[in-house]
Amino acid sequence: MTSAPTLSDIRAARELIAPHIHRTPVLTSATLNREHGAELFFKCENLQKVGAFKARGATFAVLSAPEADVRGGVVTHSSGNHAAALARAASIRGVPGHIVMPSNAPKVKQDSVRRYGGQITFCEPTIAAREAAAAKIQAETGAMLVHPYDDWAVITGQGTCAVELLEEIPDLDLILAPVGGGGLTCGTSIAAKALRPGIRVFGAEPAGADDAFRSLQTGVRQPQDNPLTIADGLRVALGEKSFSVLTRLLDGIVTVSEDAITSSMRHTWEVMKIIIEPSSAVPLGALQEGKLDVSGKRVGIILTGGNVDLDRLPWQH
Amino acid sequence: MTSAPTLSDIRAARELIAPHIHRTPVLTSATLNREHGAELFFKCENLQKVGAFKARGATFAVLSAPEADVRGGVVTHSSGNHAAALARAASIRGVPGHIVMPSNAPKVKQDSVRRYGGQITFCEPTIAAREAAAAKIQAETGAMLVHPYDDWAVITGQGTCAVELLEEIPDLDLILAPVGGGGLTCGTSIAAKALRPGIRVFGAEPAGADDAFRSLQTGVRQPQDNPLTIADGLRVALGEKSFSVLTRLLDGIVTVSEDAITSSMRHTWEVMKIIIEPSSAVPLGALQEGKLDVSGKRVGIILTGGNVDLDRLPWQH
Repeated sequence: MTSAPTLSDIRAARELIAPHIHRTPVLTSATLNREHGAELFFKCENLQKVGAFKARGATFAVLSAPEADVRGGVVTHSSGNHAAALARAASIRGVPGHIVMPSNAPKVKQDSVRRYGGQITFCEPTIAAREAAAAKIQAETGAMLVHPYDDWAVITGQGTCAVELLEEIPDLDLILAPVGGGGLTCGTSIAAKALRPGIRVFGAEPAGADDAFRSLQTGVRQPQDNPLTIADGLRVALGEKSFSVLTRLLDGIVTVSEDAITSSMRHTWEVMKIIIEPSSAVPLGALQEGKLDVSGKRVGIILTGGNVDLDRLPWQH
Repeated sequence: MTSAPTLSDIRAARELIAPHIHRTPVLTSATLNREHGAELFFKCENLQKVGAFKARGATFAVLSAPEADVRGGVVTHSSGNHAAALARAASIRGVPGHIVMPSNAPKVKQDSVRRYGGQITFCEPTIAAREAAAAKIQAETGAMLVHPYDDWAVITGQGTCAVELLEEIPDLDLILAPVGGGGLTCGTSIAAKALRPGIRVFGAEPAGADDAFRSLQTGVRQPQDNPLTIADGLRVALGEKSFSVLTRLLDGIVTVSEDAITSSMRHTWEVMKIIIEPSSAVPLGALQEGKLDVSGKRVGIILTGGNVDLDRLPWQH
């Protein structure tokens, strides 16, 4: 894909990936509704295949690529959810899935990639080493690079989540999702605003990794220097493609403290009995800190993932 | 209710409680299917209101009772999921919910009951003290006793879970559920066998608390002496009402080791990203130990609850 998707692209993507992903449930909590004076609808991508919405974009990117492009397999450099999602998508397509990981990647993440049939190449834990290792694999195998977020096909796939959410709860006033590289917020904005003109879409970002907030404020994409946040999925910088869309479609970004992220993660477990990763807790953290007035509103919140090391929960430190 | 429910009673119960409970999702895992050579469908009552299927039975028992019976409120003695479920059901009906708890009940369970508006009465941690405290409350307030499982209305409510499961996955070959007091297996057997003649329904029980297994073997209800299992929801003895139904309708009970329970609980987290309580892991533990041949079969498994203290996971000991 060479340009931003439309709603009809996103709908077609949904058809293509539907046999391979969960239609995730939308959960509610009377306790949270009472606490926020709003009706909150949680789209549970923590229960998605590979435990994260990343399954959507990676699956669409791999399944929609022309045969010639993926004959040599696919490759990405990531230690997170996109790595597992791409490994799984490659195995669905029946092509090699090459994953470049830093040598210090947690064993649980390595295991997850291997479980889905991914072939891991280790490298030094620097961005330069990762990119070099991926480029080397591309050159040697002809594998197609699938970027975790700065890729129109990936963005198209991520947009399918909002289509499902609005199909189930059509009359939302706003949708709130975490912002990292921006792929999810980008796909969500495109789908939601086409399906329901007048709906507002907000991003939520850790205050310690607020490049997207600063980028939208200044109108110029800002670097993400030394991100300091427990929300490991949101430490990356906003992608160029998402930025071009978000400046036009996003209603705003709110920033959230680390304390609010951790306590929302824990509170979500206490009242909804689901484990979400810190990145997923950022939107609820924003509401907890009063960063967005949602009183009386019907609010969709995308819980992006549930990959957490239970033996190292943040509140057990 | 004075006798065992029929399918139409269970369907009516479902209508009555539908506005107050989640229609819980049915999840699948390609990894687990591969491991067991079967298609497994997990009905996720761990994502139910109060984090357990107990919300179904308690809600139906309280909402279906005649006004005169509940004018003085409702009462139960329990430190588990039924306590929170009954407190919540009472607040839906707008009557007092009295919960008798042993003085050593974990704070997290006390908090849960209070969050739903329950009024806690503490007593010594013995069965006799619990029953006496509940009887005293009944005498003083006229509250209606709602037993956690030996109650036809509660059993009727628990049966609604199988109705939803079979509506979503109609062509199951068998259903597997944990057995404690028997309310869930009883309601499940009645609903499933009426909806789909030929389906088989099995119970799974910890080997360290196998009174139901022995009861069905001998045809006489056996006592549950010194239950030794991590599955705290299954330490109670099979109820008389459930026993009368299960001898007729249940296809069998399989028993499961403690190791299999713990490792299935952990494995469920690893591959499905959901936290289930030890009681919920007993059916998968049975498959892991090869206690039931499910190869090539379509199997429904009821995950009964998700109330776990994350700071004290069994594999962290």
